[in-house]
Order: sequence, then C-alpha cells, then structure tokens
Amino acid sequence: MSAQGLELFADLYEFRMAHAYRALGMEEEAVFSLFVRRLPPQRNFLLACGAEDLVDTLEKLRFGPESLACLRDLGEFPEDFLAWLARFRFSGAVHAIPEGTPVFANEPLIEVVAPIAEAQLLETLAMNMVGTQTLLASKAARVVAAAAGRPVVDFGSRRAQGIDAALAGARAFHVAGVASTSNVLAGARHGIPVAGTMAHSFVQAFEREADAFRAFARQYPDTILLVDTYDTMAGVHRVVALAREMGEGFRVRGIRLDSGDLAALAGQARGILDAAGLQHLQIFASGGLDEWRIAALLAAGAPIDAFGVGTDMSVSADLPALDIAYKLTAYAGVGRMKLSEGKRTLPGRKQVFRTAEGDTVALAAERLPGEALLRPVMAGGHRLAPRQPLAAARQAAATRIAALPAALRALAPAGVPYPVAVSPALAAEDGQVRARIAAANAGTA
Amino acid sequence: MSAQGLELFADLYEFRMAHAYRALGMEEEAVFSLFVRRLPPQRNFLLACGAEDLVDTLEKLRFGPESLACLRDLGEFPEDFLAWLARFRFSGAVHAIPEGTPVFANEPLIEVVAPIAEAQLLETLAMNMVGTQTLLASKAARVVAAAAGRPVVDFGSRRAQGIDAALAGARAFHVAGVASTSNVLAGARHGIPVAGTMAHSFVQAFEREADAFRAFARQYPDTILLVDTYDTMAGVHRVVALAREMGEGFRVRGIRLDSGDLAALAGQARGILDAAGLQHLQIFASGGLDEWRIAALLAAGAPIDAFGVGTDMSVSADLPALDIAYKLTAYAGVGRMKLSEGKRTLPGRKQVFRTAEGDTVALAAERLPGEALLRPVMAGGHRLAPRQPLAAARQAAATRIAALPAALRALAPAGVPYPVAVSPALAAEDGQVRARIAAANAGTA
Repeated sequence: MSAQGLELFADLYEFRMAHAYRALGMEEEAVFSLFVRRLPPQRNFLLACGAEDLVDTLEKLRFGPESLACLRDLGEFPEDFLAWLARFRFSGAVHAIPEGTPVFANEPLIEVVAPIAEAQLLETLAMNMVGTQTLLASKAARVVAAAAGRPVVDFGSRRAQGIDAALAGARAFHVAGVASTSNVLAGARHGIPVAGTMAHSFVQAFEREADAFRAFARQYPDTILLVDTYDTMAGVHRVVALAREMGEGFRVRGIRLDSGDLAALAGQARGILDAAGLQHLQIFASGGLDEWRIAALLAAGAPIDAFGVGTDMSVSADLPALDIAYKLTAYAGVGRMKLSEGKRTLPGRKQVFRTAEGDTVALAAERLPGEALLRPVMAGGHRLAPRQPLAAARQAAATRIAALPAALRALAPAGVPYPVAVSPALAAEDGQVRARIAAANAGTA
Repeated sequence: MSAQGLELFADLYEFRMAHAYRALGMEEEAVFSLFVRRLPPQRNFLLACGAEDLVDTLEKLRFGPESLACLRDLGEFPEDFLAWLARFRFSGAVHAIPEGTPVFANEPLIEVVAPIAEAQLLETLAMNMVGTQTLLASKAARVVAAAAGRPVVDFGSRRAQGIDAALAGARAFHVAGVASTSNVLAGARHGIPVAGTMAHSFVQAFEREADAFRAFARQYPDTILLVDTYDTMAGVHRVVALAREMGEGFRVRGIRLDSGDLAALAGQARGILDAAGLQHLQIFASGGLDEWRIAALLAAGAPIDAFGVGTDMSVSADLPALDIAYKLTAYAGVGRMKLSEGKRTLPGRKQVFRTAEGDTVALAAERLPGEALLRPVMAGGHRLAPRQPLAAARQAAATRIAALPAALRALAPAGVPYPVAVSPALAAEDGQVRARIAAANAGTA
C-alpha cells in the first residue's frame, strides 16, 4: 500500500489528543516505546520486521487537501490545528531493532522520540505496520525451521487477512527464510522470487487429466504437475506415462500433492517415480500445512522435497495477534508509565544489550556489554541510512536465529524462557518514576 | 486500497494457466464458484461481505505499462500474451449473494462466468477480498449479538493484520452491526461514524491525572474519560471531583475502563458515580474483549453501556481464516469437479433458494420455492446496479440475522446445523459429472 492516505490511518483519539496538546501548548519531546508485552507459549521468540516500511511511511507522511477536508468534516477540529497538520512533517527520531533480529517480550522494537503531538499521531500506524510484519515473520520462522532446509513457498495470499497482509506478509516471510512467494505483486514490489505450479482448475478444464498434463508440460516444460485432482496415484502414473511419451523432451521437475495423507501419498508416489527411473522428480507438498504438520511429515520420513504453505502461515493461525503496545515512556525529559494491572511499561528511552547469556533492557544512556540492538534509523524526520535490502534482513535473520539456544529454535515451548533482565539503573529509574507518580496521584483529588 | 496494482495481486500459476489457455485456444466460458467448504463449531453462520468491493475492482482492473513490465521481467510470458493483458477488460458476469446475508457451508457466495483465462486470473483477488470481509463480518456479528443492543465500537485497527484488513474490517464490522470505528481513514472511506476517547498517554503526559482530566474535558466537554491509568477507583473519584469543580460546565459523557476485572470495576464505578448524582455518566469498557467476555460481563450484571472491541474481533481470533475456495465448476458448458478427498465441489452454475425451513443449493436454471439468494451483479464486465450503500447492507444484515433460528444466533454451537440441501436436479447432475469424469479418467493412461 502506498503511503498516500496513511496519514489518516489513525484512531480519532490520536487527533483529539494531538489537538489538545497543541491547544495546551504541550510541545515537549515525548518518547513512545513499541513492544510486545507477553510471549505466549506458541512462540519462543519473535522476529522483528516492518521497521523499514514504517520509516519510509513516516518520511512521506503529509496531510493533503483531501485528508484535511476529511478531518474538517468531523466538525471538531479548528482551522489552526488543520493548518498545523497541513504543515506536518514528521520531525522526530526513530530507534529500531533491525529487521530479522529475534526479540522478546518487553524489549522495545521501536522507540519514537518527537514532539508529543507528532509521536501520538503515529500510534495506530506504527503498531499495525510493525506488528503485522513481526507477527507474520515470527510464524514463518517456525515453518522454515520445521522444513529443515527444504524450500518453503508462500501460498498464503488468498487466505491472508486482506491485500496488505498478503503483500507485507510475503515480505516478512522472505525475511524469515521462506524461499519464494506465489504472489506476483509481492514479488515485483519486494524483489522476492515468484513461484507457481498449476491449479486443479487446469486439470478439470480438460476431459482427461493426461491431456491436461501433456498440454501444461508442453507450455511449461520444467513445471510441477499437480496430481491429486481425481485420484492421486493414478495422477502419478500419468506423469510416468507422460515421461515415456515425451522421452527426451520430458523436463517436468516434479509433482505436487495437495490433499489426503501426504506422508503415505508421498511415499507411494516416490516409489512409483523411482521405479520408473524418475528419481530426479521432486515431490512438492501443500494443503493445510503448518510447522507442526511439516515436522510430523518429516519425522515420519515422508520423501517431500519442498512445501507450499498457505493459510496457517498467512494468518499466523495459532497466534493471530501480538500483545503489542505503543506507550508513552517519557515526556519533557521525565519518565512516565501506566500502573494499570498487568500493563506496566518501563520508563524513559531504552536500549537492549544482547550477549551470549541473554538480553538486558537498560536506559539508553547506559553502556553495557554486548550488542546494542536498538539503532538510530531516523533523525530530524529523515532516514539515517538507505533502505536495507531485503536480502540483508533475510541473511541477518538466518544468522541470528541460528545463534539462538536450541530450545528456543524448537517448535515446542522452551522450558526456560530466554533471559531478559532489566538493568539496575533502569530498575532504579522505574522505582523512582513509580514512586513519583504514586505520590503525585495519591488520594483522589 | 485502490484498485491500482491489484491486477498483479494474483498467484503466478494463474498467469501461467491463463497463458496456457490462450496458447491452446481454450477460450470457452468457465464458471468458478467461491464458497466456504466447512463451518467450524465456532460459527453457526457466516455473514456475506466484500462483493461490492470486488465488483468495483473487477470493473477497473487494467494492466498498465508498469504491470506489464513486471510480468515481462519474469521472463516466461511471450509478447502476444502481454498484448492480450494490455487489452484486458473483465468481460464476464458475476452473481453474488448480497452483502449482509447469512450464508452457510457449500453455498456459493460468488459465481463468476467468463472466458476461462479471465476467470482464472481473479482467483486470489476474489478469495482474498470476499474472504477477508466475510471472515470479519461473521466474527463481528457474534460480538454485536453478545452486546445485546449496547453499542460496539471497533478499536481494532492497531492489531488488525495490515492496513487493508483494518479498513476493510471496519466496513465489514459496520455491516455486521458495529456502531462506529476509531479509524479516521476507515470512517472517511466508508462513511462509518468515527468515535474515540482518550489514551493513557494523555493522562501520563500530565504529572497528575486530575489535571489531565480537567484539560481534556475543557477541550472536549462531552468526552469519555479513561480512568484506569493508575488506580481505577481513584480515577472515578477524580471524575466526580471534576464534576463538582466544573458544576454546570461539566458535560463529560462517561468513563472508560480498559483493564482489570471489568465486571467488578464497573459495578464499583457505577456505585461511586450514582452516589455522586452522576447517574447519566455512561460506563464504557474495553481491553481484551470478545463475544464470550462481553456475554459473561452482561450475564454477571456488569453495568456497562458500551464496548470497545479490538484485537479478537479485528483478526477473528478464534477463527482467523475461512476454508474458502474458488473452484472451476463448468467449462464449455460441461460440469467440472475435483474428486480429491474432502475437497469436492458441486458442478455447474448454481442458485441458493432460502425458505423458512432452510436452504437448497440448486442448478441455476431451477425455479424452487423461496428467495433466490444469488443475484446478478455484473454482466459483460459492468455493474448492473449502483454500489449499494453500506447502510442498506447493514440493515439487511440486522433483518436477516434476526430471522435466523435462535440457536444459530447464539454464541454456542447450534446443536443442529442449519439445513442446507442439494436439489435433486443438482444431485443428479453431480452424479453424472462424477461418473463422466471417473470414466474419462479410468486407468492411468
């Protein structure tokens, strides 16, 4: 989705608060922290993704006449506020954990430092963009791990929750290690390899499956043939017959199974193909796959060479949303936090330091051992470095995931969560802010 | 999302098959049926939604130079196919069940009748657009039912799976009976009322909660004040204090609870407000709500007047994808079907007749008692009627849902599924097509 229109992709209360801040002369700098509160047992880690798209969007965010007219039509914003929006350029700083980095609960993925009205307006947009890609990359990392080196193809566009989720999802999947996408637009937009086989409809459009196979293989000699439209093993035998018929001209790469007992069918198909001297034909499996089913197929010894994964990955079916938050942690240089039950936030600008032993969330000014994960990516409203190529994020993900403890890379819940500590200085700041707020809000006056 | 670019929102195999059909001279009319294979126990019915957006998109679908260049870059399509795409105008017919109609498994939501290459190219787009809105409308109908007449506000944009899901979701939610959305862009685009209160960040930006309440109420006199940033009951008392302080000028409409034990807090808050003579202040609840939690709150007698519902509704958390399919059911006037295990399709062009006793899926040419649900909406690539106002779909949904048997409107799984029969003529056609295909594909040649 282009950035146009996204300036209105905000909740009404963000405009109301921005207007109130302006009207009250509250123009000091705020820090907002974007983080995930909890990791459920279905995820041992999250894979940060989406920051590059957010930065691009923030650089381009403008309120044109049409958007201002929409806001004016709401009948509650005065002209001076609309004039401020007409001049709006995001002027703040953004710190982000690079795409492709494993992250954990309560670690800021993004920190925005900007005049409070500006930073407030980004809330919904930042949460949606970074949240969606992080959600989908995190799911895909599990699918890729389960496939144990076999290529995974993204087949999810048709079942994704909307157009943007399919496109942003294809990008996030590729960062997480998915080899290619079936979606042509996603491939073109993000530079992802595009892959595809054939659908049942092509087979059905012919009276005889054998005729469909022959026609498609002549058109696309190195295709994968889908064999389960009618009777799967008969379909495999027809591929063998086509190989005999075409002789030297037979260059079909493999077959696809899309229904039934994939382990049993793959085993039988492999036997038929091998007996016919077609050992080089690959077996491609799809249909209702997720990381658990892939792992079970491979554990059962199913001779499957590649997987097409759709629905469950495309909507992160076992965890369709993250408990993501975008919270004010400082205003006018003073730490802020909520005290609501179960929804506490760490105050101030922060940094995450990663060592072999685990992570420490610290104050941004601290210098602790390890790698500082939050990097400055925008200052003064401008990008600090060119957009990172997707391949770099993908490589970083592979390297960083491989460096995680084995228990975290497993599909099952890690017995012991990854250690994320809070530095003594941040803990002290937390205590002081908490005490200050409690004192200021004692009683009910 | 605008239609621009959506011409490439297709899986590569759709272009490959379209090209193969063209190359083979297969230009006969195809029928593709869009339907949901199964309803899981979490849904007693689905609410059809998204057809209007699909029709708009199909009318505008064009392959411009940029899209053609993307396809050319794939290196597998000859210029004559690209030239055909350059001239492409969807020329087919579309039949759709009107938005806001409850539908069931195996009932076609959409049937596309067009030259096979054209109809094939729409597969991913049609499934994604109609599937997403139907998924989200179906979830929202349950939330609205649980709220039992109390307004539900869509707070889901931040956690929705992408920008498009948030915008299309707001539309689908409104059709299903949700009163308003927090998203300004969704409101502007779809003409949905926009609503909002205030965030914790506004309270936090002040040293004292009382000061934040006073400032916000002066700016927005008829606001809802969010009381759970620090201590919820203290927050309620501060609203009471503000009412005393402001006297006649106090026009605050209510309070919002966003965390903790909402039933207990609502009861206590109601007591405090009533004791202070603020019986007219409403209690608005949000935070982790879905249809079950809303039903439990109301069953417990919680004095809540309106609900803000986000995550669980915005991603249809208990059912994040439908088992939706887009299948060839006829080509060149001859019925087609898959025989894959668990994935059978009903052949030919169909109609769904609804009576008080249930539905019957029939051949399109049949005239059975009851309301014919599938209506022609496009012919020759053009809309047959102006876009239906969203309010009409919303009204239709309310009326049609109210007409469902009570067991289907309940949150719990209906003991007996809604009766969906197959007409004798369709059953006979199904048997004949099946026998024809089995005979044509007997053996393995």
